[in-house]
Amino acid sequence: MNIKIALINPNTTKSMTSRMHKAASPLLSDKVDLVSLTAPYGASSIEGFYDEIFAVPPMIEVLQPLAAEIDGVVVGCFDDTGVDALRTILDVPVIGICQAAMHAASIVSHKFTIITTLNCSVPAIENLVTRYGFDKMCSGVRAAEIPVLDLESNTTDAIEYISKKIEQALSQDGADAIVLGCAGMVDLTRDLTNKFNVPVIDGVGVAVKTIEGLVSMQITTSKIAGYAPPRVKYYSGVLERFSPSQN
Amino acid sequence: MNIKIALINPNTTKSMTSRMHKAASPLLSDKVDLVSLTAPYGASSIEGFYDEIFAVPPMIEVLQPLAAEIDGVVVGCFDDTGVDALRTILDVPVIGICQAAMHAASIVSHKFTIITTLNCSVPAIENLVTRYGFDKMCSGVRAAEIPVLDLESNTTDAIEYISKKIEQALSQDGADAIVLGCAGMVDLTRDLTNKFNVPVIDGVGVAVKTIEGLVSMQITTSKIAGYAPPRVKYYSGVLERFSPSQN
Amino acid sequence: MNIKIALINPNTTKSMTSRMHKAASPLLSDKVDLVSLTAPYGASSIEGFYDEIFAVPPMIEVLQPLAAEIDGVVVGCFDDTGVDALRTILDVPVIGICQAAMHAASIVSHKFTIITTLNCSVPAIENLVTRYGFDKMCSGVRAAEIPVLDLESNTTDAIEYISKKIEQALSQDGADAIVLGCAGMVDLTRDLTNKFNVPVIDGVGVAVKTIEGLVSMQITTSKIAGYAPPRVKYYSGVLERFSPSQN
Amino acid sequence: MNIKIALINPNTTKSMTSRMHKAASPLLSDKVDLVSLTAPYGASSIEGFYDEIFAVPPMIEVLQPLAAEIDGVVVGCFDDTGVDALRTILDVPVIGICQAAMHAASIVSHKFTIITTLNCSVPAIENLVTRYGFDKMCSGVRAAEIPVLDLESNTTDAIEYISKKIEQALSQDGADAIVLGCAGMVDLTRDLTNKFNVPVIDGVGVAVKTIEGLVSMQITTSKIAGYAPPRVKYYSGVLERFSPSQN
Amino acid sequence: MNIKIALINPNTTKSMTSRMHKAASPLLSDKVDLVSLTAPYGASSIEGFYDEIFAVPPMIEVLQPLAAEIDGVVVGCFDDTGVDALRTILDVPVIGICQAAMHAASIVSHKFTIITTLNCSVPAIENLVTRYGFDKMCSGVRAAEIPVLDLESNTTDAIEYISKKIEQALSQDGADAIVLGCAGMVDLTRDLTNKFNVPVIDGVGVAVKTIEGLVSMQITTSKIAGYAPPRVKYYSGVLERFSPSQN
Amino acid sequence: MNIKIALINPNTTKSMTSRMHKAASPLLSDKVDLVSLTAPYGASSIEGFYDEIFAVPPMIEVLQPLAAEIDGVVVGCFDDTGVDALRTILDVPVIGICQAAMHAASIVSHKFTIITTLNCSVPAIENLVTRYGFDKMCSGVRAAEIPVLDLESNTTDAIEYISKKIEQALSQDGADAIVLGCAGMVDLTRDLTNKFNVPVIDGVGVAVKTIEGLVSMQITTSKIAGYAPPRVKYYSGVLERFSPSQN
Repeated sequence: MNIKIALINPNTTKSMTSRMHKAASPLLSDKVDLVSLTAPYGASSIEGFYDEIFAVPPMIEVLQPLAAEIDGVVVGCFDDTGVDALRTILDVPVIGICQAAMHAASIVSHKFTIITTLNCSVPAIENLVTRYGFDKMCSGVRAAEIPVLDLESNTTDAIEYISKKIEQALSQDGADAIVLGCAGMVDLTRDLTNKFNVPVIDGVGVAVKTIEGLVSMQITTSKIAGYAPPRVKYYSGVLERFSPSQN
Repeated sequence: MNIKIALINPNTTKSMTSRMHKAASPLLSDKVDLVSLTAPYGASSIEGFYDEIFAVPPMIEVLQPLAAEIDGVVVGCFDDTGVDALRTILDVPVIGICQAAMHAASIVSHKFTIITTLNCSVPAIENLVTRYGFDKMCSGVRAAEIPVLDLESNTTDAIEYISKKIEQALSQDGADAIVLGCAGMVDLTRDLTNKFNVPVIDGVGVAVKTIEGLVSMQITTSKIAGYAPPRVKYYSGVLERFSPSQN
Repeated sequence: MNIKIALINPNTTKSMTSRMHKAASPLLSDKVDLVSLTAPYGASSIEGFYDEIFAVPPMIEVLQPLAAEIDGVVVGCFDDTGVDALRTILDVPVIGICQAAMHAASIVSHKFTIITTLNCSVPAIENLVTRYGFDKMCSGVRAAEIPVLDLESNTTDAIEYISKKIEQALSQDGADAIVLGCAGMVDLTRDLTNKFNVPVIDGVGVAVKTIEGLVSMQITTSKIAGYAPPRVKYYSGVLERFSPSQN
Repeated sequence: MNIKIALINPNTTKSMTSRMHKAASPLLSDKVDLVSLTAPYGASSIEGFYDEIFAVPPMIEVLQPLAAEIDGVVVGCFDDTGVDALRTILDVPVIGICQAAMHAASIVSHKFTIITTLNCSVPAIENLVTRYGFDKMCSGVRAAEIPVLDLESNTTDAIEYISKKIEQALSQDGADAIVLGCAGMVDLTRDLTNKFNVPVIDGVGVAVKTIEGLVSMQITTSKIAGYAPPRVKYYSGVLERFSPSQN
Repeated sequence: MNIKIALINPNTTKSMTSRMHKAASPLLSDKVDLVSLTAPYGASSIEGFYDEIFAVPPMIEVLQPLAAEIDGVVVGCFDDTGVDALRTILDVPVIGICQAAMHAASIVSHKFTIITTLNCSVPAIENLVTRYGFDKMCSGVRAAEIPVLDLESNTTDAIEYISKKIEQALSQDGADAIVLGCAGMVDLTRDLTNKFNVPVIDGVGVAVKTIEGLVSMQITTSKIAGYAPPRVKYYSGVLERFSPSQN
Repeated sequence: MNIKIALINPNTTKSMTSRMHKAASPLLSDKVDLVSLTAPYGASSIEGFYDEIFAVPPMIEVLQPLAAEIDGVVVGCFDDTGVDALRTILDVPVIGICQAAMHAASIVSHKFTIITTLNCSVPAIENLVTRYGFDKMCSGVRAAEIPVLDLESNTTDAIEYISKKIEQALSQDGADAIVLGCAGMVDLTRDLTNKFNVPVIDGVGVAVKTIEGLVSMQITTSKIAGYAPPRVKYYSGVLERFSPSQN
């Protein structure tokens, strides 16, 4: 059996997709194909509650036609944007990189702090911390105050700003691990781990391997409660093509 | 000063908007105008995580042009769909009927059970219970197993199914109040209150009065954290018209 | 229908009652009468657990005779003193300004810090934060170290001390809104909002409007659990006149 | 050193005080005097939020004059009525029988259910469960629907009603211990323990022994936060004699 | 790079180790070696708090000599026995099958119930639910009342007893997934999944794949807090050979 | 009736046992015998998760033969090592000094900070805080960075290091009481209480008095759930002598 995992970047920045793909590829077992996809339209970065909402339709438009051929999905955005909706239209397991990263951190540390990009993203992440059960294990969410796309264009500053927040996390929060709270930070994992000598975790790789695991075991999404297929109905107007129909 | 409150129904069912409007109107003070709006396109009812996502763009499209003239917004859907996104693009206060109803219930009772329509909506509501802090006060979320639109077409059955769940809530959950977990139940409040002699709360009226109160006091949405205006950026493709721009 | 709301100040300082009345009056709709009452005897300010207890009998003595003519009650003390007891003897809705203010703050912000007067009041307020479900949304309770009555006599100092705490709340707690944790601060709301450009919320106005809303909707206090009328019994001695009797 | 512990029954039913005294006396070490006191005026039983409030002034009136000669205080009412206020006016340790009983239960079991008298007392007890930190260990609060004073007059029925609730607790709640949620049940401990062969815990004895322990170790109430002495002030009118004064 | 994962069964029942090995083997990528180990001495099954304690020394004795050659460890017991201690003596990631299974369940469902063997194991598992943050997602822990070793000898009865509990979980707990709470149930996963058409999750496979993932990403255990290497010291007597020494 | 309480020090340092015995002895009532026991083999101090595990077998070996003659047990280590296991093999009540100290602190303060020895012990203690329900009352766990045995050899430094942490707890954590988080600090209680004028609580005395209380009341450990006697089974190899057998 071959396993095909879709890694979807909900923003339109293809270079970010490439970097995620490059980070996750070496981790996969031979029987796994990683298909990395980029939102075909929409925002070039997801920063806060508003961007989040509009990140979902392009993901659905890309993934629904692939439903028959993919075995699992990773949403490559730390807000876990659209994960709940995707779980309803797919039978295969779906995970976001935030949930995945927190699972990993909870295995190798007692407490972790999340370093994200901008202050405006902190509340959404704090809501996820509570939602996923990590209120006690998460010792803080700190913003490095660097916009998502600057992570690409200005790696030197990014490392410096993020490092400052890691220092605060270790000295003030009681954290013994760090979670990088943005898909755009995926390249920095190794350097920051070496610099601080604590686990520095990016969710992309963890998420892909988690899905590989669930698929291997044929664990699929429960269809008897909130993740049941959307009830068939007609969406009028420009949303017509998103109308949930009989599969 | 006159106050203009927008009550937006995120689904396209105009009769539901009318019923909400009719329920809320008599409650308002003289200086308040209630502008009731219906999603111009999209789904005729919001049932579960998938419908929720697509309910937001039409609301934004309707409300953004009105930003300068409205003083507050009520989202007339018990999933509080899109409330976070609306709070970012508007300075005025925004509330969903779920949060409003739970606030009211927590004032007049010790514990309340929420009766919603379908099982597929329970998880989204349970997530809101936690998000808004009512884990201890909410004694359960029960589905009457009646689709949203049947609430209109078949009131007799609706009352019967909902009554059965209220009986269970009172006898098994320790609830001393009931929250009706769907905007479509707004007409049933009075009958069910009389029948069971406990507070039966619909969020529509509460939400409208809450917004009236906040506006009177000139309390607006905080703009320094998660509800800051969306960062200006270009959304490509069919989403272009939703691109956050400088106000 | 006309609505009559009683705003009861559980301390004997009439000027404080006046200031609360003045703050709340302009907010009311035409059909609402606000009857502001002052404790006829007892303490001139409520500061801590001991004062709280003795603040309740005068409130009951004032309100019980008015039971037939009032439609709702606001307790104008941030400890929400006596609210539970008043809910048992009245059918109409009763709220304290602490619960009201936290409801408002949770609508317009992600996290709020409460600034109260004295350190000795912090524990009682922290207990209410937990009781009302705001453990995650409340980012701290800070004391400005200014006694309640000094808020009246020395507004300049009050603003300075409170401002210092607001600065700490915004820079250290991650708060994006402020709740003023004493009825005596009601006059400072507007100035502090302007100064800090974040929502600064006093509970008096919110509470009055919340009650107006509940009364409009004919939502009354549940009588089947903890807020059932007190069981009829004889209180001996000086408490005789407080004996719960058949209505 | 001799230790003098005051056990105060906040209701006026002297036979209940006697039964509490009789239950606790055999447990004390030789150097301990147990002074059992009955509220000199007020209610003959404490049932719900209203009775609670009026139970405090008589306790304060009895205990304050004894402040210099007593070493610790037990409040013999499962609502832990007035405990916070008493902690402010006394330096010596003060405990209520609810907190004491839950401490004991958490040592000898994994989960306990509390059986109290009437439904109207359940909410107050549930609030205490949260306040004291036992949300996870307390598997339920059940009312036997027997008024407090009937526990004295009709022991046979009391045992039968309480036994029915214990059976439910063991079979449905997953409880492996029972806490008796009313001082009036103190006599039933032994019989019910034998009948059900699980720990059945009354708080009176535990509370007295806990205070004995704290006093032996010279552990006194912290005076730097919420339990600081009440600020000196004048209470007007009938409350004058309760005015907090310089000690 | 080849990855060597140790799956340690802390009890001495080799057939259980074999069944776990057989279940996990097909899931692994080519570059992974799974070394399955059985406790060389001790108990034939781990049932409750007492057995747990004695399950740890044999695991340590087996794993410490392999420290240099293994890349990660799975503890094949649902109590996650000894996981904390193993994390201190190994730099490589260590997980128990309870934590792993709950992570998986939280991805594919809204709420899960755990079905374990005996009532005496429920409290230890409930403690883990809280420890790992799944209080809200875990809808119950139910005992099938079948001893661990009977799972092997009497599969027919096991399936029947477990099925009965699954039925209760789905109809009464609101669960939409099931976690099998004993390593000995590993063989039943597929049959029960098919029978109930909801995710039925055994932790063995998930744990092994989780470790494979963490190792691929070179994520190791944090050594700056609770999982720091044990301080070097001499253990006297029969424990001498367990003395933590300089590596 | 005479009461015999075993105080077991799970490490081999006899001087620490002596100091605990000396601290607890004066507190006991005449009818109580305190038998202080030292682990006959194992580690000289318990510091972190690894030491904890190996501290349990010697305690069991010492206590099991005494089961018939002792009435209660105190585990004199702040990690409450082995308490769950001991509760299964004994019918009499068993408490650790961590749980006991937190119970005491919650009676005389609003919030307490725990000062322990080394950073590596903080996570285990934080887990206990959650386990016992003190998440809200415990305002922090701070390490004085002094190894356990240095508490004996270098009291001057110990007091200085611990004092610095107490200062931080009072000024930064909002604590109004201190819990000493290591049995080796038992001698410092009085001095630190006097120095800081807040309750400084060591668990040894509290634990012994708590057990005295439970025994006086004939409250024993529940045997119907997690603390049921270990199921009879054969432990092979060096663990044979620990095999749970029929009593």
